[in-house]
Amino acid sequence: MKAVPPPNAPFADECIEDARASDPAKLGWMQGFPPPPDRRISRALGHHFSWPQLRWAVSHTHQLGPVAVIQRGAGPISALPQALRDDLDAVPFKTQRDEPLTWGDAFDANYTDGLLVLHKGRVVHERYAGVMKPNGTHACMSVTKSFVGLLALKAVYDGHLEEDKLISHYIPSLKGTGFGSASLGQVMDMTTDMAYDEIYTDPNSGIWQYLRAAGVLPLRAEDQAYSGGLYDYLAELKPQGTHGVAFAYKTINTDMLAWVLQTVLTQSLPDLLSEVFWQPMGMQQDALIQIDQCGNAFGGGGLLTCTRDLARFGQMLAQDGFFNGRQIVPAAVVETIRQGSDPAKFVPAGYTTLPGFSYRAMWWVSGDPHRCFSARGVHGQAIWVDPVAQVVIARHASHRHAGNAMNDSVSQPYYRAIADHLSRHPS
Amino acid sequence: MKAVPPPNAPFADECIEDARASDPAKLGWMQGFPPPPDRRISRALGHHFSWPQLRWAVSHTHQLGPVAVIQRGAGPISALPQALRDDLDAVPFKTQRDEPLTWGDAFDANYTDGLLVLHKGRVVHERYAGVMKPNGTHACMSVTKSFVGLLALKAVYDGHLEEDKLISHYIPSLKGTGFGSASLGQVMDMTTDMAYDEIYTDPNSGIWQYLRAAGVLPLRAEDQAYSGGLYDYLAELKPQGTHGVAFAYKTINTDMLAWVLQTVLTQSLPDLLSEVFWQPMGMQQDALIQIDQCGNAFGGGGLLTCTRDLARFGQMLAQDGFFNGRQIVPAAVVETIRQGSDPAKFVPAGYTTLPGFSYRAMWWVSGDPHRCFSARGVHGQAIWVDPVAQVVIARHASHRHAGNAMNDSVSQPYYRAIADHLSRHPS
Repeated sequence: MKAVPPPNAPFADECIEDARASDPAKLGWMQGFPPPPDRRISRALGHHFSWPQLRWAVSHTHQLGPVAVIQRGAGPISALPQALRDDLDAVPFKTQRDEPLTWGDAFDANYTDGLLVLHKGRVVHERYAGVMKPNGTHACMSVTKSFVGLLALKAVYDGHLEEDKLISHYIPSLKGTGFGSASLGQVMDMTTDMAYDEIYTDPNSGIWQYLRAAGVLPLRAEDQAYSGGLYDYLAELKPQGTHGVAFAYKTINTDMLAWVLQTVLTQSLPDLLSEVFWQPMGMQQDALIQIDQCGNAFGGGGLLTCTRDLARFGQMLAQDGFFNGRQIVPAAVVETIRQGSDPAKFVPAGYTTLPGFSYRAMWWVSGDPHRCFSARGVHGQAIWVDPVAQVVIARHASHRHAGNAMNDSVSQPYYRAIADHLSRHPS
Repeated sequence: MKAVPPPNAPFADECIEDARASDPAKLGWMQGFPPPPDRRISRALGHHFSWPQLRWAVSHTHQLGPVAVIQRGAGPISALPQALRDDLDAVPFKTQRDEPLTWGDAFDANYTDGLLVLHKGRVVHERYAGVMKPNGTHACMSVTKSFVGLLALKAVYDGHLEEDKLISHYIPSLKGTGFGSASLGQVMDMTTDMAYDEIYTDPNSGIWQYLRAAGVLPLRAEDQAYSGGLYDYLAELKPQGTHGVAFAYKTINTDMLAWVLQTVLTQSLPDLLSEVFWQPMGMQQDALIQIDQCGNAFGGGGLLTCTRDLARFGQMLAQDGFFNGRQIVPAAVVETIRQGSDPAKFVPAGYTTLPGFSYRAMWWVSGDPHRCFSARGVHGQAIWVDPVAQVVIARHASHRHAGNAMNDSVSQPYYRAIADHLSRHPS
């Protein structure tokens, strides 16, 4: 058995920098009954966030730790009309680094596992690779945040929450803690300033402690402080500056938001996601969500879905909140996302690949003429909504490198190239 | 935080010998966001098999360890026509100990969590208690075995397996091991004689080691020998007598059978259950199944389903394998179960509550005039099929005591009382 490397560090002999070569089935990961000892991936081995094991783990996350179920209910599956076309792969575009690429080649460049493109509500492109299947589930990671953000905006619209209220108003036990003095709106827009950092490439970063608290990674002997789960961790965080000044991407905000939502609405996050989205939208499959030691769902990144249901969610937003014959969220809530927040607060975070963007209620908002907005997961998972072109792109991916800065150079022009092409050449 | 007791040992101050008093919601287990520290149940705490935590754990098993998904697919849900009636609870009967009881009172006497009765294919009774919901999932425990047994009988019928062949024929690496010299049929009927015991009330029994190997219970520091999962454990077992002489109920047989099935059919157990049962039967929900460290599904007891889907499975068998407009398994396969095996081989096992029974292909076969047969889980979970009365009873339960000997005194006459009542007073 090989030594277990630190989280996200590669095995030296398996630095396979290529999507096709790192296909888990080809590499034999978890193939056979039982899989050979040196091809096993498990929570006990602790290497499921390592490369290339990650490529298998993202579509088997429920096999690597506890989950809760987000039920689709007993209703019929909502239609996703098909209008497949074969001209998209050849669409040329240039990356942000000015390299020429075709749309089809970008599939592997982004280590894509599942991809679905909707134009005017119809499926024009659908493709899977590796061990991801149309009826599988795949880790959405931080795309999860945007689901929680939308729940929060709806709760504000419905009058259950107020963005100006302090977190300590909703959870009095947090008075005096870092989060207690932040407003709900600051948490929603991630402008809190907390003594916690989120640098995926640094094994000592707060995010790795937090993922252990969240139950995503196993606890180590020295991690007893996190055994109380997400909310015990959040309750201990200290502030480090002034809330509200600048955007700083920190997963802890989303779980703080989920904690408030569940407390005020007295329903668990999986049940809220089921009731507000999965059941009325006629999702095709139950989704799953990773949970911590206390059964708390990991709102910051635990959602596991199929690619089609991710696309349905995007399509609902492209249609001003209307889907499957009903208004899922008010149109005004979707407009709140499209408006974004103050781009000046976004600039200090240094996302050079996202010029003009802002962050609003857990959504990445482009501020471009099409008013596109996006949900983003750390290994390239994405929902891209272009309301003007009526294009929705849902993508599950397991990019070699954690952090969207690693794929934005391809992804950002890629999204716009296909929207432009579909607008100029409609079906 | 309380000290963690050994598996299945009660907390001294919480020996609540009553179904209603041990309702997990009433006791506050895992209620709130987050639940209070002394009301948490987790794999890390290791007390989910303890009482009364078990009553919550059985309907949240997927939150306590890794699972695989048994997909229902995208087809419509099969009908379960309703013909509810209100006369069943008053039906009187006598327990095997000659105590008078009503059918309704037996619900709590058996610590029932979910109950569904079908008569001639229609739902005449449905009831839930505690934290079990109609759309929830509940641990079926050894009821799982009967699903695997039916898959095996079908594979024999289809010509993929032969009952006379040795296990080492199918899995050559097992030559020279305890299982290698058993025939497939001996494994199916549990007449292997292996150096392994299964006494749920003995914390040192083989079953507890096995449940750790299966991933159902967490590994302890001294359990490294089981970290390879179910099949590594099975491969190391030694024989202790002569195979084929007598029935001896040992869970290891079912996983040995599942290992052969998966190897020969080159599909995982969850995928087989999905393809053969969940998809064509129009089950209402995805089921889940517990898996070990290597991703192997726990065929001996890992199935998590809703009560209605358990009832659909029973109804399919009551209809000679026909359900949802198609033949799910050949009628001859169901007849094989009804015929049972040699009752003389059953007698030495000492099941005094089951006179006349035999064990065939992971089913408990009554040998009575109605040719009833049953699937049985260790905390009272059951499928009871009466093909003559056309009565199917599906039950999820979390009986205070592990072992059906603890509930058979009530359950055995209870099943027959309701079948008799429904036959005499049809809807």
